[in-house]
Amino acid sequence: MKFIDGGICAAKGFKAAGLHVGVKTKNKEKRDIALIVSDCDCTAAAVYTKNLVKAAPLHVTKENLSNGKARIVFANSGNANACAPLGEENARRMCNAVAMQLGLSENDVLVASTGVIGQILPIDIIEGGIAELVSNLSYEGSKDAAEAIMTTDLSMKELAVEFIIDGKPVKIGGIAKGSGMIHPNMGTMLAFLTTDCAISSEMIQKALVHATNVSFNRISVDGDTSTNDMLTLMANGLAGNDKITSEDESYDVFAKALNKLCIDLAKMIAADGEGATHLISCHVSGAKNEEDAEALSKSVISSTLVKAAMFGMDANWGRILCAMGYSGVAFDPDKVNITFKSNAGNVAVCEAGRGLPFDEITAKNVLTEHDITIEITLNAGSAECTCWGCDITYDYIKINGDYRT
Amino acid sequence: MKFIDGGICAAKGFKAAGLHVGVKTKNKEKRDIALIVSDCDCTAAAVYTKNLVKAAPLHVTKENLSNGKARIVFANSGNANACAPLGEENARRMCNAVAMQLGLSENDVLVASTGVIGQILPIDIIEGGIAELVSNLSYEGSKDAAEAIMTTDLSMKELAVEFIIDGKPVKIGGIAKGSGMIHPNMGTMLAFLTTDCAISSEMIQKALVHATNVSFNRISVDGDTSTNDMLTLMANGLAGNDKITSEDESYDVFAKALNKLCIDLAKMIAADGEGATHLISCHVSGAKNEEDAEALSKSVISSTLVKAAMFGMDANWGRILCAMGYSGVAFDPDKVNITFKSNAGNVAVCEAGRGLPFDEITAKNVLTEHDITIEITLNAGSAECTCWGCDITYDYIKINGDYRT
Repeated sequence: MKFIDGGICAAKGFKAAGLHVGVKTKNKEKRDIALIVSDCDCTAAAVYTKNLVKAAPLHVTKENLSNGKARIVFANSGNANACAPLGEENARRMCNAVAMQLGLSENDVLVASTGVIGQILPIDIIEGGIAELVSNLSYEGSKDAAEAIMTTDLSMKELAVEFIIDGKPVKIGGIAKGSGMIHPNMGTMLAFLTTDCAISSEMIQKALVHATNVSFNRISVDGDTSTNDMLTLMANGLAGNDKITSEDESYDVFAKALNKLCIDLAKMIAADGEGATHLISCHVSGAKNEEDAEALSKSVISSTLVKAAMFGMDANWGRILCAMGYSGVAFDPDKVNITFKSNAGNVAVCEAGRGLPFDEITAKNVLTEHDITIEITLNAGSAECTCWGCDITYDYIKINGDYRT
Repeated sequence: MKFIDGGICAAKGFKAAGLHVGVKTKNKEKRDIALIVSDCDCTAAAVYTKNLVKAAPLHVTKENLSNGKARIVFANSGNANACAPLGEENARRMCNAVAMQLGLSENDVLVASTGVIGQILPIDIIEGGIAELVSNLSYEGSKDAAEAIMTTDLSMKELAVEFIIDGKPVKIGGIAKGSGMIHPNMGTMLAFLTTDCAISSEMIQKALVHATNVSFNRISVDGDTSTNDMLTLMANGLAGNDKITSEDESYDVFAKALNKLCIDLAKMIAADGEGATHLISCHVSGAKNEEDAEALSKSVISSTLVKAAMFGMDANWGRILCAMGYSGVAFDPDKVNITFKSNAGNVAVCEAGRGLPFDEITAKNVLTEHDITIEITLNAGSAECTCWGCDITYDYIKINGDYRT
């Protein structure tokens, strides 16, 4: 398996486009509607936020995906179409308008929105841009679409991988956006994946749920699970492999590549968390089981105080043990070792639950790096898990102190 | 019931003192050891953090309190004595040294620490100051003790109430400290209460647990449940009322006053959250039951995004509905109304789950006030609950980016 260029257009038969039509009112140069279209029918799967308050497009997408098929992703940024008047009606109007322009069925559309909650979607503006958006569709359009789903994201998130099944090159590509209200539960803010793999609806849903659980569900920016989280995957079969219909060897190859792609996209979201200056990986090993390791790791990367310490490049490991302590997991604090790691070196700060003497200058050097790993060993078993987050900074407060107005 | 001066020395027969001995190394003028002593034996109760990682003094206090009696509270700030070598040994040395100086038993001591986690307690420095601390004990010492338990707190937290039982004036006083790592679960960072009420160990524990649940357990500063949360109450009986031994009318009067005192102390902690510029009260009404109302309210005041919006004085109510949605409580979003309230007026922003048009200038005026109430009605029942929090600010990041060093 190798990483390749092309994002969501890397897989055969997928076109994409992005355009500015005016949903984003602040920045007139930023694209705000995105379109992905497959040249032929696809099996498709999606996972959604578990927030009880779900944005209107999620309901419509779920409905359209009930047959396990789709061909189009249509998304806008700048307005979440959540808790807004006419929510489902406007989400349906998005589907209808784009399907009509493409000469396809509205049931083939997966629709998504991201942005401010509670304001009515400017549907006329969106409809007005669809003809131009469709005319812009191209096999090189991934970056335009990736830009069009960004909100406070600073970096575009686009990846693709290639691997072999039945001697045929198969590709999976994806675009994603963060970067606040990130604490996904069965999805992330928005991520759209495409593949030319031939795979059944059942197997693609299974692979997507697993990939989500080991990637997007293991990151946190601010502990706020969004109303709009959605992740979709469309598979058009153009790679020409024998169709995957069970958990056979080909499924394993596909699932492994999908997991890797999702993990790397998720890490890009964590690294580009609002205002973030560090990507924090927390690796918990020596656990009784993976669930414990995950809950502990997630508690650490979600702790506001740990995040603030990482921003301050302060080896304040007591906060890490504290966050583990309120995770709900039973473990023996007196067996815990903690080490900070980065490209600048390692510094062990806690052994058997007690502080170790360490050199503050060395620690500062380790924590000055952008990518920091908090290495925790429980000495209670052989299970492990990594979760990813970022630090909390002045800029996070600035961005979120005045996001809406 | 009325509020009176005197703090923990308001109740008859309680002396207090505070002194700087050098546990706090940064600020040499700030007191760092506190002592409260009753003139006679007390029934006593305590609640502790539910963090699995508990500081050493909590274990020792629990042990000393196993007979339901105590006479002394001895606390230090500047070092949490948590996850530190010799933790329990040093907590016991604190008890022994102060008991010996007072000519009392070490089993009568409730011991507490607050400050940095993971560093060895400078027990020699503390022991060296005990003679002077004891000689400073006075019936006017409440403020000195209140200052000596402060860490990043900006304001001293001291309150007392007076009420009548059996025709006798009864008093309850308390001191408390915040102000980071505040998301209490069965206790708060530190709060010490005294009363001259005559009440049995069993009843005092019952009253304290209930008061905690409706006060300290309903505040959050940063979602981090500390390793050191502890709340104690000593009752010496000097008010001369008939001893309360069951949940009779006198118990109700006592419990009501205790609840009020604890709620007001808890609000002082929330208002003085690290870096805070607003006290946020979230009142949820129209709920099916109090548990639902509490979980929803707590989710709102704990949301980093809601806190950032309040800092920015931005009426971004979508984040409130979002935080309710991931609270785990089942409710109908389409029945929710939301209004922001303050001394500057009210502004309704959401009705039946949909945004209302509102004047941005009016909203800004309402949210510019220090005390802000988020009023949420669910229209699903008659239960209600209020929780308290604060905004998240640049100063929170500054304080916690470099707390330890």
